Amino acid sequence: MTNLFPVRRRQFLLGSAGLAGATMTGLPALAQDSGQLPAYVAWKNADDMIVHTEETLETVRAAQGDALVTPSTDLYIRNNLPAPSDEIVADPDAWELSIEGVAQPSTVTLADLKLLGSETVVAVLQCSGNGRAFFDHEASGSPWATGAAGNVIWTGVPVRDVVEAMGGIADGMAFLTGTGGEEIPEGLPPETIQVERSVPLDAMEHAILAWHMNGEPVPLAHGGPLRLIVPGYYGVNNVKYLKRLAFTAEESPAKIQQTGYRVRPVGVAGDPSQPSMWEMSVKSWITGPLEGASAGRVRIAGLAMGGTSAATGVEVSTDGGETWQAAEFLGPDLGAFAWRPFVLIADLEAGIHTLASRATNANGDTQPEDFEPNERGYAHNGWRGHAVEVTVG
Amino acid sequence: MTNLFPVRRRQFLLGSAGLAGATMTGLPALAQDSGQLPAYVAWKNADDMIVHTEETLETVRAAQGDALVTPSTDLYIRNNLPAPSDEIVADPDAWELSIEGVAQPSTVTLADLKLLGSETVVAVLQCSGNGRAFFDHEASGSPWATGAAGNVIWTGVPVRDVVEAMGGIADGMAFLTGTGGEEIPEGLPPETIQVERSVPLDAMEHAILAWHMNGEPVPLAHGGPLRLIVPGYYGVNNVKYLKRLAFTAEESPAKIQQTGYRVRPVGVAGDPSQPSMWEMSVKSWITGPLEGASAGRVRIAGLAMGGTSAATGVEVSTDGGETWQAAEFLGPDLGAFAWRPFVLIADLEAGIHTLASRATNANGDTQPEDFEPNERGYAHNGWRGHAVEVTVG
Repeated sequence: MTNLFPVRRRQFLLGSAGLAGATMTGLPALAQDSGQLPAYVAWKNADDMIVHTEETLETVRAAQGDALVTPSTDLYIRNNLPAPSDEIVADPDAWELSIEGVAQPSTVTLADLKLLGSETVVAVLQCSGNGRAFFDHEASGSPWATGAAGNVIWTGVPVRDVVEAMGGIADGMAFLTGTGGEEIPEGLPPETIQVERSVPLDAMEHAILAWHMNGEPVPLAHGGPLRLIVPGYYGVNNVKYLKRLAFTAEESPAKIQQTGYRVRPVGVAGDPSQPSMWEMSVKSWITGPLEGASAGRVRIAGLAMGGTSAATGVEVSTDGGETWQAAEFLGPDLGAFAWRPFVLIADLEAGIHTLASRATNANGDTQPEDFEPNERGYAHNGWRGHAVEVTVG
Repeated sequence: MTNLFPVRRRQFLLGSAGLAGATMTGLPALAQDSGQLPAYVAWKNADDMIVHTEETLETVRAAQGDALVTPSTDLYIRNNLPAPSDEIVADPDAWELSIEGVAQPSTVTLADLKLLGSETVVAVLQCSGNGRAFFDHEASGSPWATGAAGNVIWTGVPVRDVVEAMGGIADGMAFLTGTGGEEIPEGLPPETIQVERSVPLDAMEHAILAWHMNGEPVPLAHGGPLRLIVPGYYGVNNVKYLKRLAFTAEESPAKIQQTGYRVRPVGVAGDPSQPSMWEMSVKSWITGPLEGASAGRVRIAGLAMGGTSAATGVEVSTDGGETWQAAEFLGPDLGAFAWRPFVLIADLEAGIHTLASRATNANGDTQPEDFEPNERGYAHNGWRGHAVEVTVG
């Protein structure tokens, strides 16, 4: 051994413990929930998943690591309704999509769509409530920490190519509206439960209709055979089992659009005048160490995303935000909508250290220290809430 | 329906058949071998793998598709010796590596290495014999078609950072030599069977010691907990279970270096004067369609790699090489050592079409039409051998 590594043995003992079963400080119970996967996602890596409910599974924070791309086996699950029958992914090319609000409305198959154009985009998929666990108030919904987010490779046809093939958008349309193929239980008015979301027409520039996720057909659990991907926009806008793509003058009348996914003060009901959960904001979080480390050189790693513009830098603090050092991005830049893993080797003395990270994007936005509470616990990107307390010894 | 898609129904029927079970024309038997995975790689996607032997598994050509990154569950397997016990991946950070031929030789743990530096590189991993099936002569070894190759995200410490920490390379060293951690059966002289490979010192510029593959700890089957990655070099040089990294004056005395993996004329025995399987060359292949398509617009997809310099372009022929059209790369550029998926939408009349692709790299090298046979069937990159005959109707 050289003298570079005076505390080798304790280092790796603590390090491996952290990797094997750690979640963030403050939510120890979650770690115990991993390992029991619902049957429809039995193909996931059980060690890396926290099962909140049958329809909500989070990636273990430590397992997010410094991954350039999130393996499909580790990607979080959040479904608003149970998935349709898996018969719909048996012959993906036969899936039919209705296209409306264009000069030549049409119903086309996925095989048809593949002939109109292809694009591969790497984009963060993130639930609106990712970070909910870091609010002080009790917001309803899954207590996501950092793991309702992943960096995913999507391949599909650009929506603009579809529009061009259909003769352009009809006059007066202001929104791109996607309708999911979930089954609506009998007797319920569809708008109360239908997963149908509208995003501003501007979002069309980067949107694709994706048939592949991480190089394979989109699995049913993630919206296959066809999913609307709106890079830079929260997960709910990335409609699964897409059966209808419509250009519309108004936002969808569905409850999930009108009153759901609206940012409002705590205690206030949702209404259409409030901001919709559309564009994501700049954000970062540390993925290791999360609990303990040996004094001396410590490898601090994490992930930084820019939201709707590229992450351009990230700083790390080891003293709870008193001082900051620039961390280095790891690996190639996968585009403006992708996250960037980062690493900083720091020298840490024995004691309790509060590790935090703070990202900046190409718009010049920087993560705030705190984040105002909101009724549903959406969109938290405050760096203090995402900080971790680590015992160095 | 618009009139853009006059042959819709036949199109998707043929298309889905091609996706589900197709392999290349001429090797129909291989498709029947998929689905029975050895226990140690039971976590692979059986539908996408062709099992040649217990230690050699190939990715189905159609499944390679236009994937920007090869999912770990689809990555080929080629092991020269059985893997060590899986106990070595239970606590990856405890793995020990001996570093020799430097100013300060040392044995360090993986936990130590993580503190010396980090880099993420995307690099094609390809077996020397990938394309062996396209030679006319009967070369010994697995009859790989295109599937002994994958595009993989590797994270680890740059070898140059390790060297710097150890005081630099000792005088007179010309090779970087990696030794694998496979168990040597008792009674055998180690050099007859040891997996130990040397590459020229120049390769150090881009080499890393990788602990993560596609964002997760390197699985045992792929050389975890620590694998030497030499971007641009054939798979055999990417030593698994790396237990020793040495800078040496001479190439390894191991048989796998001295006489194995040498390019020589058919019928000639291997010897150290022949070229070693080091640097990969420019190459591409079509992944679909492989058997049939409907007349009209057809989506032709494939993969192009540059070898040791970036792939800069790829052309596609639908008439067996009489004429060529430029195809478009799909998705972000992941660096010089990564492959680039490509797509071309072509208009094809009914009949038999020979589809071929021809890539060029930043060095100005272009795939040759034919490739001279060699005893072991290594390094085939001739475009004619990789072409596929497709029945369009």
